[in-house]
Amino acid sequence: MPAEAKVPHEGAPVAQAATLNGLAAHGEGRRRVIVERVAPEVDGGRFPIKRGVGEAVVVSCDAFADGHDVLAVVLRFRDAAESAWREVPMRHLGNDRWQASFTPEQVGRSCYTVLAWVDRFATWEHQLHKRVEASQDVRVELLIGADLVAEAAEHAPLVDATTLRGFEQSLRAGDAKAGFVPELAQLMATYLPRRYATTYARELAVTVDRPLARCSAWYELFPRSTATEPGRHGTFRDVIARLPYVAELGFDILYLPPIHPIGRTFRKGKNNSVTAEPAEPGSPWAIGAAEGGHKSILPELGTLEDFHALVQAAKQHGLEVALDIAFQCAPDHPYVTEHPEWFRARPDGTIQYAENPPKKYQDIYPFDFETSDWQGLWQELKSIFDFWIAQGVTVFRVDNPHTKSLRFWEWCIDELKREHPELIFLSEAFTRPKLMYGLAKLGFTQSYTYFTWRISKWELTEYMLELTQGEPREFFGPNFWPNTPDILTPQFYGGQRSVFLTRAALAATLTANWGMYGPVYEQLLHTPVPGREEYIDNEKYEIHHWDLKQPGNISWFIAALNRIRRANPALQSNAGLRFHRVDLDFHESEQIIAYSKATPDLSNLILVVINLDPDKLQRGWVQLPAEEWGLGASYEVQDLLNGVRYTWTSGFNYVELDPATMPLHIFHVLREEEMTHDVGDYV
Amino acid sequence: MPAEAKVPHEGAPVAQAATLNGLAAHGEGRRRVIVERVAPEVDGGRFPIKRGVGEAVVVSCDAFADGHDVLAVVLRFRDAAESAWREVPMRHLGNDRWQASFTPEQVGRSCYTVLAWVDRFATWEHQLHKRVEASQDVRVELLIGADLVAEAAEHAPLVDATTLRGFEQSLRAGDAKAGFVPELAQLMATYLPRRYATTYARELAVTVDRPLARCSAWYELFPRSTATEPGRHGTFRDVIARLPYVAELGFDILYLPPIHPIGRTFRKGKNNSVTAEPAEPGSPWAIGAAEGGHKSILPELGTLEDFHALVQAAKQHGLEVALDIAFQCAPDHPYVTEHPEWFRARPDGTIQYAENPPKKYQDIYPFDFETSDWQGLWQELKSIFDFWIAQGVTVFRVDNPHTKSLRFWEWCIDELKREHPELIFLSEAFTRPKLMYGLAKLGFTQSYTYFTWRISKWELTEYMLELTQGEPREFFGPNFWPNTPDILTPQFYGGQRSVFLTRAALAATLTANWGMYGPVYEQLLHTPVPGREEYIDNEKYEIHHWDLKQPGNISWFIAALNRIRRANPALQSNAGLRFHRVDLDFHESEQIIAYSKATPDLSNLILVVINLDPDKLQRGWVQLPAEEWGLGASYEVQDLLNGVRYTWTSGFNYVELDPATMPLHIFHVLREEEMTHDVGDYV
Repeated sequence: MPAEAKVPHEGAPVAQAATLNGLAAHGEGRRRVIVERVAPEVDGGRFPIKRGVGEAVVVSCDAFADGHDVLAVVLRFRDAAESAWREVPMRHLGNDRWQASFTPEQVGRSCYTVLAWVDRFATWEHQLHKRVEASQDVRVELLIGADLVAEAAEHAPLVDATTLRGFEQSLRAGDAKAGFVPELAQLMATYLPRRYATTYARELAVTVDRPLARCSAWYELFPRSTATEPGRHGTFRDVIARLPYVAELGFDILYLPPIHPIGRTFRKGKNNSVTAEPAEPGSPWAIGAAEGGHKSILPELGTLEDFHALVQAAKQHGLEVALDIAFQCAPDHPYVTEHPEWFRARPDGTIQYAENPPKKYQDIYPFDFETSDWQGLWQELKSIFDFWIAQGVTVFRVDNPHTKSLRFWEWCIDELKREHPELIFLSEAFTRPKLMYGLAKLGFTQSYTYFTWRISKWELTEYMLELTQGEPREFFGPNFWPNTPDILTPQFYGGQRSVFLTRAALAATLTANWGMYGPVYEQLLHTPVPGREEYIDNEKYEIHHWDLKQPGNISWFIAALNRIRRANPALQSNAGLRFHRVDLDFHESEQIIAYSKATPDLSNLILVVINLDPDKLQRGWVQLPAEEWGLGASYEVQDLLNGVRYTWTSGFNYVELDPATMPLHIFHVLREEEMTHDVGDYV
Repeated sequence: MPAEAKVPHEGAPVAQAATLNGLAAHGEGRRRVIVERVAPEVDGGRFPIKRGVGEAVVVSCDAFADGHDVLAVVLRFRDAAESAWREVPMRHLGNDRWQASFTPEQVGRSCYTVLAWVDRFATWEHQLHKRVEASQDVRVELLIGADLVAEAAEHAPLVDATTLRGFEQSLRAGDAKAGFVPELAQLMATYLPRRYATTYARELAVTVDRPLARCSAWYELFPRSTATEPGRHGTFRDVIARLPYVAELGFDILYLPPIHPIGRTFRKGKNNSVTAEPAEPGSPWAIGAAEGGHKSILPELGTLEDFHALVQAAKQHGLEVALDIAFQCAPDHPYVTEHPEWFRARPDGTIQYAENPPKKYQDIYPFDFETSDWQGLWQELKSIFDFWIAQGVTVFRVDNPHTKSLRFWEWCIDELKREHPELIFLSEAFTRPKLMYGLAKLGFTQSYTYFTWRISKWELTEYMLELTQGEPREFFGPNFWPNTPDILTPQFYGGQRSVFLTRAALAATLTANWGMYGPVYEQLLHTPVPGREEYIDNEKYEIHHWDLKQPGNISWFIAALNRIRRANPALQSNAGLRFHRVDLDFHESEQIIAYSKATPDLSNLILVVINLDPDKLQRGWVQLPAEEWGLGASYEVQDLLNGVRYTWTSGFNYVELDPATMPLHIFHVLREEEMTHDVGDYV
């Protein structure tokens, strides 16, 4: 049996009690309070949770001690760069559960933990109160209290110490009332030493991201298809000319497929043909050629200066440019000759190309993450990010991260974010759930999801509950895409406009991050390669020319969705999502889905009602928790897509949605104070 | 603001990624497998789970790697004293979840963790299969396989190495079939080095207890009330004479209230009177007098030799003697003068007595666990256990552990069990749930519960689901008592015999540990102190004389319960509990509760049906999962209380239970092979 090296614990507890000497060395023996089950906590504190800057972290824990003493429990938090904790008292929720919250104010990493101790003064005061009520002789108890006050006075500055000495004398003189003066309680809470305090066993971490990381709308386009005249290879300059269009659609992020030189060996032709004609441009994901690799630009697109110009121009339109990072090489990538040790050699002297047997991808060489020079490989891959960060890029869409070592990603993202906490990483992992969640836990900011394959009301509801109520809510940033260059799912094949409207609306309102691949989407393209869930004549393999004014396009609708998202904070978070019952003939409708999103204070309340049936008009009765929301027996809802107002009640509210016209409502639920005037934020 | 000492982490992980150097130092960078979410695991591995010796520990985990390689995942386990791991392969359940089990064979502590790696040979074989199916040229792949086989051969002893070399040559010769020979797979699993294996971050622990710790029936009696003639103080010799009675009732453990000298200062009289007449014996829980303290015996009970005789005689009757450990002192306990520093001094020079303001317990001094000599106190308290262990006692009922420092208990129980893993500690903590569970997590074997206050069908069902399906099932050993000297709950006040029968049956069949306080219980005593849930004329304060032949007593029934428990393994575990629907007029009956307990292999199947209504006959229709249990459309059940057999069906089965006669059934559900002959294990 071969031996394995002993893997060090990742700083984890071993379940065994301490020795008396060990306890004594740390003064542990007299710490009577137990702090347990702190939440949120991912995998016993192994991974950080995620929050946006300015977004509250609500922390709860169990804290208890032997006996009946009163406890003081505080939440401690700090920016990871600070050494001093800040703290806020935790409130007892009952059943020995405590809660408080803090709001990270700085992008980066924050830490939190819990500290608890027996509150000697509060215990004394609580008992004194019961003794006085029972008319007991409390003279000795007042002396005990006076000793506590004297102890606090020793730790107080002069003015407060003097005040405390005054209380001490009153207590020594037998004045029980002095024990109940609020000022004394306040001073005691400040100055009485927290004897034998217990901290929670772990310091937990929060990755604090900038707002765009938590709420974003992505638009993907192929730069080479942006030329104004047909037949020409688009350039970064053409993309600059396209920016006003993307900005008018209301997107935040312009995401470009790889912009690097494209390999020539085994280059793929039109429709993924294994042979390419000499003039064919190849797939941008076959990265690397004589002109350079991951740090170079395909000459047809322009120069590095052109790219800088694009990044700057995008900023002026309120857009960030996101790059696609695909860690794989075309056979003519410079790495292949410079670092053959980073690839897997086959016994016949060739290099192992990508495979998913029996499928072969001979135009792609994967890196071998088990290479003996894994450190060199890791450093070089990280340097690719560093290079593009230096060019002003802070948003990255990472191609197939689940086929690269997870430990590499954890190290790489952690290193990069330590220096550049503003970075955003979108994981393009369409794979098994544990692997997708694993990538999110180890650092990816956002992730593609199964949304594309969640079609029915039941599927959408279950999936959203998993993402927003289950464990993933602490670390997984879902980003919903109705389409991508790789994915055209069957519901679109019929080409119904209503499907394009409803899938975009679902993506844009169910989660705070969404994206789409255009202009394919707004022009309702829907023809697949026969037998494959992929567009025919795919831009991955050829250059297209788009007429953005194509009649029947739904650009206006996409723009409306993004405008509604920007105007309504409820849609900018995944918290506060609720599904609502829609009745049809006393049964739950299978075709109409209704859900709301609300800000924590209910000041912004959005209700979305969508007919999922692409062909038939559907009717139903929507029930809302009107009372819980503090609405009256009657209230108004205003459709933000057309401004129409309806008077709704606390009972059942009729809806009728026709796929031939508009298959959905996005309602602003109006609170009483909003009903008197026109809100005016509709399209 | 006063400073607190920094509390060391209890070996817990801090959520932050490792540095490249750190990873390199441990060869971590090439470990591609992630192992997460191992279950069972209590509080991130902070506390051990509990199992009985010979009881399987079913372990599951998430394990996955980047890409599509085949993984090998093994569960590793060992007795804590061993250094070498044993291992068993884990089975893939789907969705990257893996499972296996091990069975601790030695009382004490066992450890377990998970090891996983990329199975290079299985991956190769899996891919070769797909290539061969697709009729691809596999010559190079066979060379890759040959290299793997050669690597394994280097780690194999001569005979196996020779076999491997043979396979290697076949593969090199282009014989693809050789790659699929099962013998090769077996040899490769044995000898191919487990390159870059990942262990789970934590080693988890199991407290492995002897069978009695997991399944026990306790009988509590006051030794001083065991004299054969009225008026005399009972002795250990009288208890010896009582042993045949307790053994006939079928109990395993005879539990005695404290046997130490009783304090005289502030001694309590009959019915908890604050003044005692000179002849009154006082409460056994007011421990310590001039004669000695916790290591002494009340002279009226006998000598240490008499106690040894009792322990020996009990063993001959299949009984273990359990002592009551109450860490508190009467004012005349020797500790009070020898170690005044272990008590809290008041400013008037007196010692702080026990209080729960406004209530005062002046006959009791609690220890001060914040004493500067806490180490001396801990050592002395532990030495009390050591003393009685030396006298042959291995079972302890601990009085009010929740009013003593939890860290003390964790240390004390761990120290004691390390030397004496056979010890059993029953926690008498009737307090808040978190505190009760906390004591169980830190080491108490069994615990009193809220059973006494769970009366209705709904309450019993909810509570049992929490205990047997929730987190507590891993660490909390519930022990159900229908009564104690401290607790007589209102359902008994009416004195109905049916209540005594049903509450004992619930306690004895819902959980594997139960106990009762007798002969009070079998004689149906039921008069409370007015306004208090406690017996009037309580043995805690006076000596009683019992006529064990009292007409109407239910000793026969108690004996039957214990006999049924011993004959049926299903009743000896808390796993395998299920509740079953009982219909009455198309609604769930509120009065008849039905539940089953089954062994994992369903070889023993017990169904309990109880009428909870103490006054009225109740009827209902019981539904069982007959098909799931592999029973036919018709099968037999036999009431183990009277031997009567009924033919039941897979549909609804009628029951009628009359509190005036017998308000419950305990059925043995007969499998086909058992139906042909009389099982004969009924009473």
